[in-house]
Amino acid sequence: LGIGDDAAVLQTAPDKACVVSADAVVEDIHFRRAWHTPRQIGRKAAAVNISDMAAMGAVGRWLICQAGLPRGTGLGFLKECLAGLADHAARHGMALVGGDLTSTAGPFFLAVTILGEAPPGGTLTRAGARPGHLLAVSGTPGESAAGLLLLTRGVRGGFRGAATLVRRHLEPEPRVLLSRLAVASGAVRGAIDLSDGLSTDLDHLCRRSGCRAVVEVDRLPISPSLLAGSRRLGRDPLDLLLHGGEDYQLLLALEPDRAEGFLDAARRAGERVTVIGRFTAGSPGVWLRRDTRLRRLRPGGFDHFAPSPP
Amino acid sequence: LGIGDDAAVLQTAPDKACVVSADAVVEDIHFRRAWHTPRQIGRKAAAVNISDMAAMGAVGRWLICQAGLPRGTGLGFLKECLAGLADHAARHGMALVGGDLTSTAGPFFLAVTILGEAPPGGTLTRAGARPGHLLAVSGTPGESAAGLLLLTRGVRGGFRGAATLVRRHLEPEPRVLLSRLAVASGAVRGAIDLSDGLSTDLDHLCRRSGCRAVVEVDRLPISPSLLAGSRRLGRDPLDLLLHGGEDYQLLLALEPDRAEGFLDAARRAGERVTVIGRFTAGSPGVWLRRDTRLRRLRPGGFDHFAPSPP
Repeated sequence: LGIGDDAAVLQTAPDKACVVSADAVVEDIHFRRAWHTPRQIGRKAAAVNISDMAAMGAVGRWLICQAGLPRGTGLGFLKECLAGLADHAARHGMALVGGDLTSTAGPFFLAVTILGEAPPGGTLTRAGARPGHLLAVSGTPGESAAGLLLLTRGVRGGFRGAATLVRRHLEPEPRVLLSRLAVASGAVRGAIDLSDGLSTDLDHLCRRSGCRAVVEVDRLPISPSLLAGSRRLGRDPLDLLLHGGEDYQLLLALEPDRAEGFLDAARRAGERVTVIGRFTAGSPGVWLRRDTRLRRLRPGGFDHFAPSPP
Repeated sequence: LGIGDDAAVLQTAPDKACVVSADAVVEDIHFRRAWHTPRQIGRKAAAVNISDMAAMGAVGRWLICQAGLPRGTGLGFLKECLAGLADHAARHGMALVGGDLTSTAGPFFLAVTILGEAPPGGTLTRAGARPGHLLAVSGTPGESAAGLLLLTRGVRGGFRGAATLVRRHLEPEPRVLLSRLAVASGAVRGAIDLSDGLSTDLDHLCRRSGCRAVVEVDRLPISPSLLAGSRRLGRDPLDLLLHGGEDYQLLLALEPDRAEGFLDAARRAGERVTVIGRFTAGSPGVWLRRDTRLRRLRPGGFDHFAPSPP
């Protein structure tokens, strides 16, 4: 399995596969020094990579970090970042094993590669959703985007839920336990993590799987914090939920026969999972249903190469 | 084996180890668009990583590339870079298997991670040199630094050897075949590749091995191209050979009893290897000997964080 999924799967021996993925975080694109502490920067660099492993159902083991350090930035700053990275990795049973340090005339970056082991039954991929499968999402997406918008306005408190939203953005929690449950259940056939936004990532899942997703608007898990934040921001909570990025939750395609067992196990483990729709036959893409009305949902998430808004 | 060598060695099973290393190239630090074609940029990103595998005696298999693309730079440029990277990898039997693309407000970068397999007898490391071992170097170091200096002066020809020096800088050749011969011979006990300069990298080898190296000045392999280039540049060729970086040759510690067999095999394969001294007991560091005079050689290679020259 090569380019195009959350990770590459490399057959290292007839009965053994290595799963490898890479995600970089770049200053002022993925983090800001005004908002993130150095430890939070490192933590985020770890979390986004650990999330890729979770989306593959793989057990991450090792992280390698390449840092580009601007000349004006001290090694103390870098050390704090690496401590944040190593701590978050350790919390998930993984280790920072090496890397590279270079200077750069541009923004600070951490380019992390993560290595893990494929589960015995094979990895979860973006290509496994089929018509008839249920569509589920973990957690309460949109909160990270709301947190980011609050930070851009200098708001970190002042209403119930503000701190939660900001923390969701600064300290995303990859769904490692949920991924293990997904693999163990045998119910999960396709998976992707939410990095660019639900509409965009679900579109990827549909395209790679060759089927359509119908999302029931009324089932979407809008949290009280997101609702309060949206009101404060003057934004539509649904818009944030559907198009906001960097939640690092999981989108899952579930076999209907086995879904209940998995949903039970997740509930018992304290992992929130909501069935929000279903996959159907048809040309790949995402549709939204409210009552009997159906409309196409275009990918509206973050695009690194879209023109900047005016 | 963790941080501090050319690569990390990860025990993936009781009888199997994965070797992983990471090296980033950053615009205006490791390459310039004015000098390097996009293909040469990608090629270099591959070569510096393949060289790390060679220094470990490992067989590289897979490369992962994380690219940071400035907003003004087109995807066509990136594709050419990746083609150069993939071609060079393929030439050495390796494959580009994945990666990540992000935008950046700063210079273009390629952060590559390489995965390989440890040889059955274990990897070559920086810690294996012992008093009594011979010190050998491959190729003719200093040529890459001379080529770089010529490029900074806008010189690409005009004397015999100029094109060679410039090519050594733009298209370094990692010593993959020599590394295989080193492992097969059983003669090589310690190894490092020349990225920062002979004086600096040999100092690393000495410190990690806990012994001293004595380099015989009269044995150092100054090539006719380097001699001609030095004359043109008004530089001391010895200075370029000892302190110039980015040659991606190998420094090797050889068991004297078995050295001849290895040197023979290298010669037959067309790989130039020169014995330039020996390791001795004593506090770690590098000494230069000319006739009976001995002087300390301080690391004088490239330091990413040294103050810029005035």
